[in-house]
Amino acid sequence: MAPPLVTLLTDFGLADTYVAQVKGVILSLVPAATVVDATHALDPGDLLGGCLALESILSHFPPATVHLAVVDPGVGTARQGLAVAAGGWFGVGPDNGLLTPLLALPGARVHALLAGRFARAQVAPTFHGRDLFAPAAAHLLAGGSIAELGPSLATPVRLLLPAPRPVAGGVDGEVVHVDRFGNCTTSIRAADLAGHPPAALAITIAGQAWRGLARTYGEVANGALVALIGSGGRLEIALRNGSAAAKIHAQRTTPVAVRW
Amino acid sequence: MAPPLVTLLTDFGLADTYVAQVKGVILSLVPAATVVDATHALDPGDLLGGCLALESILSHFPPATVHLAVVDPGVGTARQGLAVAAGGWFGVGPDNGLLTPLLALPGARVHALLAGRFARAQVAPTFHGRDLFAPAAAHLLAGGSIAELGPSLATPVRLLLPAPRPVAGGVDGEVVHVDRFGNCTTSIRAADLAGHPPAALAITIAGQAWRGLARTYGEVANGALVALIGSGGRLEIALRNGSAAAKIHAQRTTPVAVRW
Amino acid sequence: MAPPLVTLLTDFGLADTYVAQVKGVILSLVPAATVVDATHALDPGDLLGGCLALESILSHFPPATVHLAVVDPGVGTARQGLAVAAGGWFGVGPDNGLLTPLLALPGARVHALLAGRFARAQVAPTFHGRDLFAPAAAHLLAGGSIAELGPSLATPVRLLLPAPRPVAGGVDGEVVHVDRFGNCTTSIRAADLAGHPPAALAITIAGQAWRGLARTYGEVANGALVALIGSGGRLEIALRNGSAAAKIHAQRTTPVAVRW
Repeated sequence: MAPPLVTLLTDFGLADTYVAQVKGVILSLVPAATVVDATHALDPGDLLGGCLALESILSHFPPATVHLAVVDPGVGTARQGLAVAAGGWFGVGPDNGLLTPLLALPGARVHALLAGRFARAQVAPTFHGRDLFAPAAAHLLAGGSIAELGPSLATPVRLLLPAPRPVAGGVDGEVVHVDRFGNCTTSIRAADLAGHPPAALAITIAGQAWRGLARTYGEVANGALVALIGSGGRLEIALRNGSAAAKIHAQRTTPVAVRW
Repeated sequence: MAPPLVTLLTDFGLADTYVAQVKGVILSLVPAATVVDATHALDPGDLLGGCLALESILSHFPPATVHLAVVDPGVGTARQGLAVAAGGWFGVGPDNGLLTPLLALPGARVHALLAGRFARAQVAPTFHGRDLFAPAAAHLLAGGSIAELGPSLATPVRLLLPAPRPVAGGVDGEVVHVDRFGNCTTSIRAADLAGHPPAALAITIAGQAWRGLARTYGEVANGALVALIGSGGRLEIALRNGSAAAKIHAQRTTPVAVRW
Repeated sequence: MAPPLVTLLTDFGLADTYVAQVKGVILSLVPAATVVDATHALDPGDLLGGCLALESILSHFPPATVHLAVVDPGVGTARQGLAVAAGGWFGVGPDNGLLTPLLALPGARVHALLAGRFARAQVAPTFHGRDLFAPAAAHLLAGGSIAELGPSLATPVRLLLPAPRPVAGGVDGEVVHVDRFGNCTTSIRAADLAGHPPAALAITIAGQAWRGLARTYGEVANGALVALIGSGGRLEIALRNGSAAAKIHAQRTTPVAVRW
């Protein structure tokens, strides 16, 4: 039988031991679990970054994977915790929009984490990730029912992710993420460009303009900007063997325009 | 049966492959082991930081967990290696005080790593973590006896951790750790404040003074300083949605005073 | 039975979710696999650093370990992917020299990753690590034959690693890696110094000169430079309780000379 699989997605960083504490709790309850770090480098409180990170990994994990996500500036306040079942996966985390990519899937079932018996004996008001969410995730990893975690939650908080805006003869969007290489992922998806010949698309970003999508980085000259559909299905602005973000001073919210 | 569980706590960083080399040795000897990174971001040689990191994870890991800790500026010199059994867990590392949180537990049993047959065939004088401590940890992970690793060690090196100082009408302490969020963990523990109404406590740190402990960050205004008992049971100075350390220029050794 | 073991070595960094995506693919196909991060902190496109990192871990991993290495600026272009069986281990990655430490082992068998049935249903031209190499690694982890992955590749790309140059009365080399501690690993190996009394060797680097190799860091005075054979079998220049690289402004390619 496949070991239960859980991913961790937080803004905890890797210098402190918060991530290890969460893993210790999970492995205490489900010793056979396999734990994968999604990322822990989100800026503190960065819910949009958390949503994009969660979205980026979902389809690459097998059914029944539990995605434990903790970006939780409101920890210990009235905001609730939730568990969601959607797309064959589970999500556990605060009810602050972080789990939007799962909540947005058809047929998502959401439960508030109100069944106290799953919490640890002592719950630190500043660390629900460890004392409430990790045990809830362990319950799901062990094959427990999501309904046992608490009552249905009809209106979980959803985050409004930046959406592309259709305009006459094209679509406007913005940079939503700059990766380690300086590649700029945008809010425009492949589907937004469907039906238009890629070679004819006119791209404008940060004062730079050019025509045509490439398939991959190596199709343009060294140091040249290139637009392509990235590995997550979004329009990406990159630079061959260098950082597009550094060259054009792009960052999250930098506008990008596509015209056909 | 639960897979054997080992944590790694080092000052190796994650850029080099030292951590991976240690994992390779452990998994060569105990292929079913689950390995959890506690932290590898300790400043080189930071024994105090290592002790605090070890202390912070202990109670969240199940019995029989082996904590392999390597902050070892004296590697290859006369300092010994040791294994300790305490609190139901094991520790393995250099005899330089790093394992103090385990050594301080009641009934701790300590053995020097002198039984040569557990060392690797070749022991690099600069990497005992890989060639001596990892195999010793593997021995314990495989269910081997701690006594087989070497003779009892009566007086292992212990680190003097910063302790709070009781004063008339209160207690003085200091910052011992600044975390990723800029939260300042102090040497004062919840027990040091027991019996005094939290709302009445007067906190002074870095020229800032206020009254009262909160339960969690979100109970104060945005950008306000807040004192609370952190998730590790220590007095913590934080800032809602920001970095307390940055705002008050606090760092390890910054004094903090509590008066009742 | 031992769980199949795979290491990941990339220039992806840990802030983005690329590493997690690769792990998701591997664990979807081989749920029982144990995944170890070798390093993900290589500079983008740094093939030499990748080779040295791979070399540094090889002998510490058990037979049948699969080393998945992805530093791949040419992703999606005409460069092929390959799998190699050598020394009892496997390697999978781009055919750009990254796997040279495995290719250089006697009896290495190399196959091009041309058997399309192992690729994922959709292959992103910008992420072969996830969509081509990870499934190929999973095939090997599951005990599949390397020959099934594609035809033999007679002349894989090999990287020329910096080699020491024998000179009259000694050997010249260079720094090839600076680690987290500021220790400088060089291109000179222990074997290059064999037969010469270590205490008599004269070391020169960055205007500093001294005589003699030590066994370990703690044998010299605090803050003093020290030369020794590092834990990877290479001549290393270090500084007791400090950073040699910072003190002598050494970096990759800084020359080092040894005379006997």
